[in-house]
Amino acid sequence: MSDPVRACLIIIGNEILSGRTHDKNLPYLAEELNKIGVRLAEARVIPDIEDTIIATVNECRAKFDYVFTTGGIGPTHDDITSECVAKAFGVEIELNAEAHELLKSHYENPEDLNEARLRMAHVPVGAELVQNPISKAPGFRMGNVYVMAGVPMIMQAMFQGIKHQLVGGKPMVSRSVGGYIPEGTIAKMLAEIQGDFPQTDIGSYPFLREGKLGTTLVVRGESPEDVNHAAERIRLVIIESGREVIEDSGTISA
Amino acid sequence: MSDPVRACLIIIGNEILSGRTHDKNLPYLAEELNKIGVRLAEARVIPDIEDTIIATVNECRAKFDYVFTTGGIGPTHDDITSECVAKAFGVEIELNAEAHELLKSHYENPEDLNEARLRMAHVPVGAELVQNPISKAPGFRMGNVYVMAGVPMIMQAMFQGIKHQLVGGKPMVSRSVGGYIPEGTIAKMLAEIQGDFPQTDIGSYPFLREGKLGTTLVVRGESPEDVNHAAERIRLVIIESGREVIEDSGTISA
Repeated sequence: MSDPVRACLIIIGNEILSGRTHDKNLPYLAEELNKIGVRLAEARVIPDIEDTIIATVNECRAKFDYVFTTGGIGPTHDDITSECVAKAFGVEIELNAEAHELLKSHYENPEDLNEARLRMAHVPVGAELVQNPISKAPGFRMGNVYVMAGVPMIMQAMFQGIKHQLVGGKPMVSRSVGGYIPEGTIAKMLAEIQGDFPQTDIGSYPFLREGKLGTTLVVRGESPEDVNHAAERIRLVIIESGREVIEDSGTISA
Repeated sequence: MSDPVRACLIIIGNEILSGRTHDKNLPYLAEELNKIGVRLAEARVIPDIEDTIIATVNECRAKFDYVFTTGGIGPTHDDITSECVAKAFGVEIELNAEAHELLKSHYENPEDLNEARLRMAHVPVGAELVQNPISKAPGFRMGNVYVMAGVPMIMQAMFQGIKHQLVGGKPMVSRSVGGYIPEGTIAKMLAEIQGDFPQTDIGSYPFLREGKLGTTLVVRGESPEDVNHAAERIRLVIIESGREVIEDSGTISA
């Protein structure tokens, strides 16, 4: 496999760590990044604590090709992501003229653009805006760090606007094959197949359906040929065990 | 606030990072820990890569009071959590007699307890088993690290079996108050209230319901008195703005 382009997602917000809000941004970002050949290599969920945000951003931007943050860019006191990213980069935060215009045009009544909302037009010096087609208050890019909203609808719109900027490697493809064969029964053969196709990554996911134990095997890799060869070997193992293949996705974008 | 007891969750599995599987263990663990006065302070989602698992376990067990891992303890080649935790602690992995008995009694046909399944009875030297009432293959505790299954039903059963071992601080309580008041409108008063009640943590969560913008304000803290005082101040702000309070949870376990 070529050296993959690796990304990290930093999910910022006490509401995720308290269990109140269930994150939906990770699976979305993972699938979208896959399509353009960027691998989501790690994710962190951290609280709204300045030191933690700064340290995590600095660690991750050094370690990964791209970093995405979600959450903490609204108008309230607990929205501290922008200030923290500025501190992580050692720069000041400033009122961005373009962001200011965006917010001015969004609020019909000038009084509505109060001090709290004006905070949303502040970005670190040197940052480039990430457009928000839904509610205007922008995100931004600073170096390899993309700062985005936490609300999934807005996060998704922001990501669609910036994904053309990302330089990925070869996109991954995958093929899922499943049958009513228990994981422990297929495990040994699976390890052999994995050994024969080291360029692929074979995952094994047990399920219980209609009272019957089964396993879905997912082969992922950059080469459709390798992925298909490995998947065909898995099909054969299921069939030779006297069972049926009950699902086969064919080769799809992973 | 007293020094909180802090936990970290390490979610292990390529299937989460590829977007294929949506994690359900974080919100469950967050809420259960809250009930016993342990704060989920961070979570990490990492791939099935040995070096990454070892480094993450070692970093987190030094940094947090408790560490929980989910995923990677099944019978297949991609289940490497137990070996990695052993390496993180610098000990060997061994066949555990009690775990062996559990599996023997689970599989009626002795042939079914093959080499792959027997891997699930191996734990680091010195580990203590975590019972799995669903499918028998146990998790384990090693130092302050609890190694649990990734399948939510099994993870939950395992957690219920070990939670009496955890020593928490004061449990958090919370109260949620909401109205059709936009976040940016209430932000300034909210910052004042947060300033007046530094022992609490006030979160602000905007929503769009029936085409109308609103905000839910969540006050969390150890003292029900502080939480209630802050929540009453928030109610007042909503009412004085000429709007109605449309939700109020009262004080509940956070």
